[in-house]
Amino acid sequence: MRTVYVNGDYLPENEATVSIFDRGFLFADGIYEVTTVVDGKLIGFDGHIKRLQRSADELKMNIKVDEPEMLEIHRELVKRNNLDQGMIYLQYTRGNPGDRDFAFPPEDTKPTLVMFTQEKKVVGTAVEENGLKVVTLEDLRWGRRDIKTVQLLYPSLAKMEAKARGADDAWMVQDGFVTEGTSNNAYIVKDGTIITRHLSNDILHGITRKSILACAQLLQMKVEERPFTVDEAYAADEAFATSASGFANPIVEIDGKKVGSGKPGEVSAKLRELYIEENMKAAV
Amino acid sequence: MRTVYVNGDYLPENEATVSIFDRGFLFADGIYEVTTVVDGKLIGFDGHIKRLQRSADELKMNIKVDEPEMLEIHRELVKRNNLDQGMIYLQYTRGNPGDRDFAFPPEDTKPTLVMFTQEKKVVGTAVEENGLKVVTLEDLRWGRRDIKTVQLLYPSLAKMEAKARGADDAWMVQDGFVTEGTSNNAYIVKDGTIITRHLSNDILHGITRKSILACAQLLQMKVEERPFTVDEAYAADEAFATSASGFANPIVEIDGKKVGSGKPGEVSAKLRELYIEENMKAAV
Repeated sequence: MRTVYVNGDYLPENEATVSIFDRGFLFADGIYEVTTVVDGKLIGFDGHIKRLQRSADELKMNIKVDEPEMLEIHRELVKRNNLDQGMIYLQYTRGNPGDRDFAFPPEDTKPTLVMFTQEKKVVGTAVEENGLKVVTLEDLRWGRRDIKTVQLLYPSLAKMEAKARGADDAWMVQDGFVTEGTSNNAYIVKDGTIITRHLSNDILHGITRKSILACAQLLQMKVEERPFTVDEAYAADEAFATSASGFANPIVEIDGKKVGSGKPGEVSAKLRELYIEENMKAAV
Repeated sequence: MRTVYVNGDYLPENEATVSIFDRGFLFADGIYEVTTVVDGKLIGFDGHIKRLQRSADELKMNIKVDEPEMLEIHRELVKRNNLDQGMIYLQYTRGNPGDRDFAFPPEDTKPTLVMFTQEKKVVGTAVEENGLKVVTLEDLRWGRRDIKTVQLLYPSLAKMEAKARGADDAWMVQDGFVTEGTSNNAYIVKDGTIITRHLSNDILHGITRKSILACAQLLQMKVEERPFTVDEAYAADEAFATSASGFANPIVEIDGKKVGSGKPGEVSAKLRELYIEENMKAAV
């Protein structure tokens, strides 16, 4: 049984609860981060913590993220759960005001902080070998996808629709242009150029995205940050998706059409390799 | 202290919890209804229960709403909390799979059901006398607002922005047309005609909206169900909002501009009166 963290306490997972009046439960008034663990160490921790603070600030949550304290809890969870490979999930909510009201609770309402580990093989996966199949679906999410909130119902529905169509994930499409995957950023490669949507309120500002683009620069690959259409994706030589626990995962099929050769591409393989190398050096 | 309901148990409110792994907490994978109570009786109960089932079905939640059982719990909560005027809040989630995964949990995962009372004066209110002030804000919510989910972060943010601007609520605007309020449907009256947005995925299919439009018909008022612009709202003779606990609340100011005379209008007053009369007759 896992040991999880809830508001200062380390608890057995089956005793970990929040109030039914918690704003996270009643209003989806919560933000989260997922940090990947490899060899018991945290990948990209600093980036996740900074984005967490940004999400809190954008939503005017009264949260000052204490990075050393967060690191200590992350490490304690890794230790108590003997986590070698996997993730640590962290969620802050605006807390429990003791009743339901659309208006924010008083400033001194204590935020709720929940953290738990998940075991998952992240290095040497089957996906790395075989790639993923995606389908395209209309992007029906809210307008501030740059804030990492728990309003994840549509991505969850999209994931299920993808599975129902025999695929692994969905790429969401707005006005004909791909935004991103259900929990990852989306990329295509054409004639040696990596194309991925530019940062805006339309997509998550991926920590892994930033690091992968830095890797592309180190490898002297050409990158265009701009929206791309579904037709461009169909005609791409290669496609991939980046996320904290997926690194750079090859995509071999879009809407039932093979991408390039239909095999995982070289660009994502190279990026994945360098990403792991660089980030393992910097892991804490 | 209130007695609330959680998964079959009646509990003191401070002992009412859900797992941190509940889909409602991690994915906003939950639906809700709010039923108004007047003189200890339920207003529009049947409509709320039918909409609850529709929300569940739209999200493929494995929930068969048992109306007699729901009625019994509602009545028990009214009784145990001596509720005369106020609301009963009900929330279903896709349950607690014991871990976090975007994919739905197994079909046999038990949904979570939470219910609680809130005291609130709903008849003879100050708002009825003085009206509400609203500001207009861009509608940034997701694309399926017809499903009553707990993804309420944007309405909550909009409510706070309205307050910051000295108003009571926000009317949300999409492509220049008003969709609805943060937790109510929006109406204007011009030259004796009531104008309110037609039903679609863009707005909640209000139970009160339906009943108010039936009242308008009884009163032989002219109704147009179509989108209206912010400019039309500025130039209206009267404006109001309908919701389960607000019935038909007059709106006297939009973006700092007086609506008509700047006093609560006659149309909403008449509708409110008939609505309460008709619905009290049918209350259960």
